[in-house]
Amino acid sequence: MKIAVFAGDGIGPEVTREAVRVLHALDLPGLELTEGLVGGVAYKAMGHPLPPETIAIARASDAILFGAVGDFDCDHLERHLRPEQAILGLRKEMGFFANLRPATVFQGLEDLTSLRPEVAREIDLLIVRELNGDVYFGEKGIRTLPDGRRQGWDMMSYAEDEVRRIAHVAFKAALGRKGRLCSVDKANVLETSQLWRDVMIEVSAEYPDVELSHMYVDNAAMQLVKNPGQFDVIVTGNLFGDILSDQASMCVGSIGLLASASLAEGTCGLYEPIHGSAPDIAGKGLANPMATILSAAMLLRHSFGLEAPAARIEAAVAKALADGIKGGDLGGSHGTVAIGDAVLERL
Amino acid sequence: MKIAVFAGDGIGPEVTREAVRVLHALDLPGLELTEGLVGGVAYKAMGHPLPPETIAIARASDAILFGAVGDFDCDHLERHLRPEQAILGLRKEMGFFANLRPATVFQGLEDLTSLRPEVAREIDLLIVRELNGDVYFGEKGIRTLPDGRRQGWDMMSYAEDEVRRIAHVAFKAALGRKGRLCSVDKANVLETSQLWRDVMIEVSAEYPDVELSHMYVDNAAMQLVKNPGQFDVIVTGNLFGDILSDQASMCVGSIGLLASASLAEGTCGLYEPIHGSAPDIAGKGLANPMATILSAAMLLRHSFGLEAPAARIEAAVAKALADGIKGGDLGGSHGTVAIGDAVLERL
Ligand SMILES: CC(C)[C@H](C(=O)O)[C@@H](O)C(=O)O
Ligand SMILES: CC(C)[C@H](C(=O)O)[C@@H](O)C(=O)O
Repeated sequence: MKIAVFAGDGIGPEVTREAVRVLHALDLPGLELTEGLVGGVAYKAMGHPLPPETIAIARASDAILFGAVGDFDCDHLERHLRPEQAILGLRKEMGFFANLRPATVFQGLEDLTSLRPEVAREIDLLIVRELNGDVYFGEKGIRTLPDGRRQGWDMMSYAEDEVRRIAHVAFKAALGRKGRLCSVDKANVLETSQLWRDVMIEVSAEYPDVELSHMYVDNAAMQLVKNPGQFDVIVTGNLFGDILSDQASMCVGSIGLLASASLAEGTCGLYEPIHGSAPDIAGKGLANPMATILSAAMLLRHSFGLEAPAARIEAAVAKALADGIKGGDLGGSHGTVAIGDAVLERL
Repeated sequence: MKIAVFAGDGIGPEVTREAVRVLHALDLPGLELTEGLVGGVAYKAMGHPLPPETIAIARASDAILFGAVGDFDCDHLERHLRPEQAILGLRKEMGFFANLRPATVFQGLEDLTSLRPEVAREIDLLIVRELNGDVYFGEKGIRTLPDGRRQGWDMMSYAEDEVRRIAHVAFKAALGRKGRLCSVDKANVLETSQLWRDVMIEVSAEYPDVELSHMYVDNAAMQLVKNPGQFDVIVTGNLFGDILSDQASMCVGSIGLLASASLAEGTCGLYEPIHGSAPDIAGKGLANPMATILSAAMLLRHSFGLEAPAARIEAAVAKALADGIKGGDLGGSHGTVAIGDAVLERL
């Protein structure tokens, strides 16, 4: 069980440390953790946010536990040296094409969202976001047009096999849930979306037990406000997924509790909390490590098929929450280590 | 005062009729209305959703009052014949590059949104969306790659002059409001956004009294849920604006009350309710015409500088609402004509 631990910037190291303590406490046979540098901290130490050494560690591992990247000190750098490039680079280098973002309201925490409790309570959705294509990885640049004007440009595209493989992930996820899949696109304007929609429909023939629907992205953004409870699984491209998955997380409210998985073909995956590096509270022991601990649970489940210890972690976190153990982000006053301790006790 | 009236599909004709009654009731000197066909109804009558006759009427007018387009019967048509192309075509043909979407919660209607009343109550924002560029109007297509795979592609781009002119609209709007402008982009991934951001910063030098900030689109989608009251004016590109303006409208809740303006350079503009053609209730006299009536008020203000009659219309609508005149969309039981009557009485 080779796990790479990339703690990153800001609160990344603090929250990752607690998740690592939880992994150790499970006494998993053959557990081997290797740390690597990513993000601003890697840039400062080695001149690049994703140094070759880090990529080598990733390649030698079965899974990656990731903290967060982002560092104000690096904001002035050229784009390819900024911390965020570490996460984009890892996704591409490692082929992490399927981002799974579950959004569920934790019982008793309905008060944390700005949605009405009766609306928030119904949220139980999974966003499956494609991570390796779209306008994120197309050719791009800033050029001077023949008439002298500057123009910024980015190529958006999806090829059918890219859509097909994320479609299979989404249909399978829907089979394991309520059997409803909503594909979000902008097919009334974009040809990329038209192909996306065509392929979704083709693949749906292989999943007669899943009910496929389509929604334009503008409408999806509305429906996530109006009635997020209507969704089971949403599948969408990289750009729309970036926007909608963050919107859905905020509908849940408790950002400090949300984990995510980014999966490659096979079993390798990267697991990270959806919150960022929060430089304002970094190093103060204030960050809530629960989302990272829950990411470790996802790691055990998806990359190693270890359902029992994954469920144990999740139950321990739920128990801690039920017992009133809450970080500042949830309106509580427990610090990073205290929360880690509380989860460990309940394991 | 030459006004083109393009009622369109579904509930378009019903709601537009009431707005036209209101315009007539104001006894404006020289008012001249000319009807034209757009959308599915134009396709059925003339084989194109935006026939040359309609474009000619638009060109001969000072402003356009627009209902809605969208017709299930046309869903199977090739993209360029579908009703939505009428609105895209008009925007491009007429140079309507600046979409203004105010979102304000009407007093007493805080209950209509799924946000908590205390969050919704604070919403008073204006989204300025660029309408003539971005991935909407770039080259696009579905091609077969050398290896035989199908690929959908769309070119996203902005040239500096396109960004500059929408920037000026947004900065001026902010000057007339609370003086805060938030530019939304995805500059950590897109070169189009990087140029957008650079130009926004350049233009900001001309508006020392406006405070410019920048936000990534994923964060903006979160902040619009968490605390929409933080925004004054948001300026963004065509695609992000499509998503965020619809999200913001749903935060307000009362979609049947929200109007919008799409402005060209000079004074010509297109004014429309933000709700769609609602084919399910079309022809039943159930649709709420208030958003279209309020669009007529925007028309008088922006295209003709007629502040007084615009304010009269807005006051009459507010009075009707305060008196409990509500359409089904607002939880009331007043029909289209009854609401039109009620507004006329209060004019
Ligand atoms: C940091 C950024 C490039 C990244 C993205 O847009 O994918 C982030 O927002 C995310 O969603 O993981
Ligand atoms: C109908 C569609 C092409 C259009 C758009 O995406 O611009 C609509 O959603 C809008 O916002 O007016």
